[in-house]
Amino acid sequence: MIRVGIVGASGYTGVELARILSTHPEVEITVATSRQYAGKPLSEVFPSLRDRVQVVCENLQPDELKDRADFFFTAVPHKTAMDIVPPLLAAGKKVVDLSADFRIRDVAVYEQWYQAHSSPELVRQAVYGLPELYRDQICKADLVANPGCYPTSVILGLAPLVRNHLIDPGTLIIDSKSGTTGAGRSASVATLYCEVADGFRPYKVGGSHRHIPEMEQELSALSGNQVTISFTPHLLPVNRGILSTMYARLEKPMTTQALQELYETTYGDEYFVRVCPQPALPATQHVRGSNCCDLAVSLDERTGRVIVMAAIDNIVKGASGQAVQNMNLMLGLAENTGLEGAPFFP
Amino acid sequence: MIRVGIVGASGYTGVELARILSTHPEVEITVATSRQYAGKPLSEVFPSLRDRVQVVCENLQPDELKDRADFFFTAVPHKTAMDIVPPLLAAGKKVVDLSADFRIRDVAVYEQWYQAHSSPELVRQAVYGLPELYRDQICKADLVANPGCYPTSVILGLAPLVRNHLIDPGTLIIDSKSGTTGAGRSASVATLYCEVADGFRPYKVGGSHRHIPEMEQELSALSGNQVTISFTPHLLPVNRGILSTMYARLEKPMTTQALQELYETTYGDEYFVRVCPQPALPATQHVRGSNCCDLAVSLDERTGRVIVMAAIDNIVKGASGQAVQNMNLMLGLAENTGLEGAPFFP
Amino acid sequence: MIRVGIVGASGYTGVELARILSTHPEVEITVATSRQYAGKPLSEVFPSLRDRVQVVCENLQPDELKDRADFFFTAVPHKTAMDIVPPLLAAGKKVVDLSADFRIRDVAVYEQWYQAHSSPELVRQAVYGLPELYRDQICKADLVANPGCYPTSVILGLAPLVRNHLIDPGTLIIDSKSGTTGAGRSASVATLYCEVADGFRPYKVGGSHRHIPEMEQELSALSGNQVTISFTPHLLPVNRGILSTMYARLEKPMTTQALQELYETTYGDEYFVRVCPQPALPATQHVRGSNCCDLAVSLDERTGRVIVMAAIDNIVKGASGQAVQNMNLMLGLAENTGLEGAPFFP
Amino acid sequence: MIRVGIVGASGYTGVELARILSTHPEVEITVATSRQYAGKPLSEVFPSLRDRVQVVCENLQPDELKDRADFFFTAVPHKTAMDIVPPLLAAGKKVVDLSADFRIRDVAVYEQWYQAHSSPELVRQAVYGLPELYRDQICKADLVANPGCYPTSVILGLAPLVRNHLIDPGTLIIDSKSGTTGAGRSASVATLYCEVADGFRPYKVGGSHRHIPEMEQELSALSGNQVTISFTPHLLPVNRGILSTMYARLEKPMTTQALQELYETTYGDEYFVRVCPQPALPATQHVRGSNCCDLAVSLDERTGRVIVMAAIDNIVKGASGQAVQNMNLMLGLAENTGLEGAPFFP
Repeated sequence: MIRVGIVGASGYTGVELARILSTHPEVEITVATSRQYAGKPLSEVFPSLRDRVQVVCENLQPDELKDRADFFFTAVPHKTAMDIVPPLLAAGKKVVDLSADFRIRDVAVYEQWYQAHSSPELVRQAVYGLPELYRDQICKADLVANPGCYPTSVILGLAPLVRNHLIDPGTLIIDSKSGTTGAGRSASVATLYCEVADGFRPYKVGGSHRHIPEMEQELSALSGNQVTISFTPHLLPVNRGILSTMYARLEKPMTTQALQELYETTYGDEYFVRVCPQPALPATQHVRGSNCCDLAVSLDERTGRVIVMAAIDNIVKGASGQAVQNMNLMLGLAENTGLEGAPFFP
Repeated sequence: MIRVGIVGASGYTGVELARILSTHPEVEITVATSRQYAGKPLSEVFPSLRDRVQVVCENLQPDELKDRADFFFTAVPHKTAMDIVPPLLAAGKKVVDLSADFRIRDVAVYEQWYQAHSSPELVRQAVYGLPELYRDQICKADLVANPGCYPTSVILGLAPLVRNHLIDPGTLIIDSKSGTTGAGRSASVATLYCEVADGFRPYKVGGSHRHIPEMEQELSALSGNQVTISFTPHLLPVNRGILSTMYARLEKPMTTQALQELYETTYGDEYFVRVCPQPALPATQHVRGSNCCDLAVSLDERTGRVIVMAAIDNIVKGASGQAVQNMNLMLGLAENTGLEGAPFFP
Repeated sequence: MIRVGIVGASGYTGVELARILSTHPEVEITVATSRQYAGKPLSEVFPSLRDRVQVVCENLQPDELKDRADFFFTAVPHKTAMDIVPPLLAAGKKVVDLSADFRIRDVAVYEQWYQAHSSPELVRQAVYGLPELYRDQICKADLVANPGCYPTSVILGLAPLVRNHLIDPGTLIIDSKSGTTGAGRSASVATLYCEVADGFRPYKVGGSHRHIPEMEQELSALSGNQVTISFTPHLLPVNRGILSTMYARLEKPMTTQALQELYETTYGDEYFVRVCPQPALPATQHVRGSNCCDLAVSLDERTGRVIVMAAIDNIVKGASGQAVQNMNLMLGLAENTGLEGAPFFP
Repeated sequence: MIRVGIVGASGYTGVELARILSTHPEVEITVATSRQYAGKPLSEVFPSLRDRVQVVCENLQPDELKDRADFFFTAVPHKTAMDIVPPLLAAGKKVVDLSADFRIRDVAVYEQWYQAHSSPELVRQAVYGLPELYRDQICKADLVANPGCYPTSVILGLAPLVRNHLIDPGTLIIDSKSGTTGAGRSASVATLYCEVADGFRPYKVGGSHRHIPEMEQELSALSGNQVTISFTPHLLPVNRGILSTMYARLEKPMTTQALQELYETTYGDEYFVRVCPQPALPATQHVRGSNCCDLAVSLDERTGRVIVMAAIDNIVKGASGQAVQNMNLMLGLAENTGLEGAPFFP
């Protein structure tokens, strides 16, 4: 059994990592850290894990941490991650970092959207952890930057169109909706049950969400040219799920059938990407609790636009599940080990 | 007291009409029809109305109906409405029709999206019941076509930009999300609690929703030119609420402040349209149960796009509340009579 | 217009008071206090109130407060209330206190369940604000202790049986379920959306909830003997609503019809208590947003038990609506002024 | 691989069986029946199963069915089941029946609560499929009657007290709350999203729910005497989950510690029953998606009552998960095969 550590276990990505890893046949969780809950069993913080996960939360410095596992997930906020990851790598460990700290290849862009970066040299070494695009590099990586939740849905959704230059990237509009786990587990009035339930609202409108540079980086890489997008996130009254609705003008007319074939060809061999047969459409409830990304592509013949819809579970394919998928690749395991479960519906 | 009738009282717009009218100081409900629940008190169909609404459901033909009230709301499906409205008008009654049957001025367009129209001459006579645009005509009308829920949010949201030619209408993309009351009260698997709860999905993607010609009609009238839009509706796991997020490219650069002033000037005197001060954003939970339409306008300087967000309660301002607002105007009452209540939060 | 003040306006009972009072024809809100939001319009704290409520939050001491209104609602936590109420009364103002501080007539009992009481003399002067039981005293009172949410549902539900000695009070079991507004608006992990949604749980099991002495006080007064109850509260994933299910053994056999008549007779003249006709049952969604208490009584012939069910909106009849009902009585207004609205469904 | 068939695959227990079995290492689904969806892939009925479950729905008679699998789950309504099960057994197949048809050992009682029974001889042969009580018999059974959802929570919760004669069974009151999957997947107005969401209500009050004879049968067997209970079910606005709160008077005083030890001793070796450490309490969100039953026991010293709380996922431990647990025992597999997953939270 490979020994695995979860750094920052008391958030929603932490409990989801623990849930997934608890039935993973090749690894065992040997250490979990949490400043706030140090000394408590993780299953006391999250009673869902009772009798299934035995690890006790500890408050450890990287020095104390590094010998406790062979592989680490860092599920801490950005800025905190960039201080924890380097000593783990220096000790010869492999790391999947779930924060934003190693996702942006251009440090200047990172610093413009976040803050100063203390380990720019590691940024170059990190691989962007979207297996459907970077599988080969991930297999050889020591440090994988696990993608953001919104970017996972958007990049998987647009890759076939952008890579093949089928749309005008200047017309790209992305309207995304996320479940509330995406807002984290900190006490705050804005995410109280009564503020969110039976409601719906946009936030960070007008090009200000920090996932924008990440999406533009990957779309630009796929396109070969700089891509600038309009992106608007919204908060859904659901626990889990992201649905992104994406609009662009086709460079030249295409049929629905040609679009459908493009998507089926692109993702035919992917275990976790499921292309909806026409005229089915994705729904967050159909990927709930799974590592699946469901995609559909539609043509608006009246306006010459293509509409792509992508649904994921934001804390599985959008975070912890994709992190385990990356771990599997980095450890030479079958990519779907521990992630075979079908979605929960209802 | 003016005698008011509700034709088709057993749907969600029916119960909402009854709720609003039950405390309206100038009218009384004298008749309510329902084929399915004929003989039952409406308050047995909807126990929320117990001791507040006394009317008993009846199954009546227009002939029997017409003398039972002075003013009628027809809250029946399209196609049914076009057969009921003419005899009521012929009997000298005033009518607000909540169906789509009298909204589309061009009968050919109506017939293309719906089916054959049996009263094309009445279409010309009907006034589109968006008081913020057509107040004067509504005051004089005998037949008002109450707008669709999505169109109400979209037209109010875009009117200031389109009327002043500030955006390129060819770039208009409208991404709307609606609560489940919008799907009606018929038994169906697709709208069961377990199919909708904790989930989110698009539907009628690719330019096929029947509210499109209605929105294009009104935006074209505002613009002076034919406007064609991309419109995608989604189903929210909430009872009440629509939020529309609308994107377009500015014809020439504007500041956020100029945009904000445009909206505040346009709607400054409107009781039911509330422009959010910068940087506040609308939320469906902040209009819940009220006839308010909350608007915000944002600038995406990175892409030169303007983003407009509109939130309404789909069965109040999107249906029954707006119908009462229209009735007030048609009867010469203060426009907000019976509609003064602030939204319910939480 | 009578000038009214809300002390502690930034909680969920505060916003609900403001919503109800905003359309009350006889009063105007002239002052609202909030330490946290001092200087902000209340409608900025709660955008639902935008353009409907003009008052700005202030951080005021009782001294500064007392001349700003003629009538006060104190919607602050227990212990805080007992310091604010006395100076307001001393200044000749009338007060409805929404905290627990003046509900328990026996100060020793209060101090056992809460903490030391600084104004025991006022406790004797206060009237328990359940109008259906204490209407005459409330009309003459200067200080009304507004009942707790659970007790309102339970006392109204059991009064007919207990007062007439029809049940064995030693067998009383009360299983109550409350919406999450009951937990208040403080930032806390336990009431985050993701902790509550799609879930259900009991809390304060085993006779520890502080509403127990309040219920036992009133049931004992009705019975003429000391009543001790088993009470278990649960947290519902809804915004508003309490449903209490109450069980007791009948002292001697009764028919369903006799029970039904008892309830209809008891509450026949009450505007806010609605007895469901057999075999209808109450539901929180049928009282949502209203000051109604819906009751049903059932017989379990197999066990000789009676089952009473009571549904209220916990922040209306369980808090702010009942507070306004009390205010109306104290000011000599019609009891239902400003509270005539039918419930919101759906 | 053992070939498994699902008879009645298009309900919520059907999709949950398919989800669980899709990753079960020892079985494969070889046939699934549905009259309504015959000819459609099950993954088209439930897109959550896309690419994970390949079976196509068929409309088959028992004759055609019997050779298509070695083991059958019958997930059809009561009365239908009693006609399908006998030919499968006659063909030498093993069956777990999820309906009520073989749960009640006394056919007269069955016929009083349901309708005439066509296979009374099989009732004697069937084993009640609660493994924690009947493990040995299940291992040898050909026909297992899978328990009802409410009874599973109630019997597991009360067994330690009843079997040891620690409570007065005449004082037993059971207040249960169920998620909406329990109401099935038929189109109906009462279970539409808008009728259930943001609401809560009791149903079948007064000793009329059909799970009562099943609970009384098992509690009586544990007690050695006839037990009669008061049972009230309620409908929760959640997809999955039952929480039962159970009250009884202790025969003689016990300490909390003694009660806790009783439960921990009783269930210490059970993989799926988790006794909450004092003072933790169960919550449906902590068992969601798993085969766990979480229990807590509390003492109300003021009244001498014990309160037991049990939480399960109604379509896993309350239906399909328990059915697979039974299958594992009947096939000689490890009891938790395919059921090791920790609950989903949030």
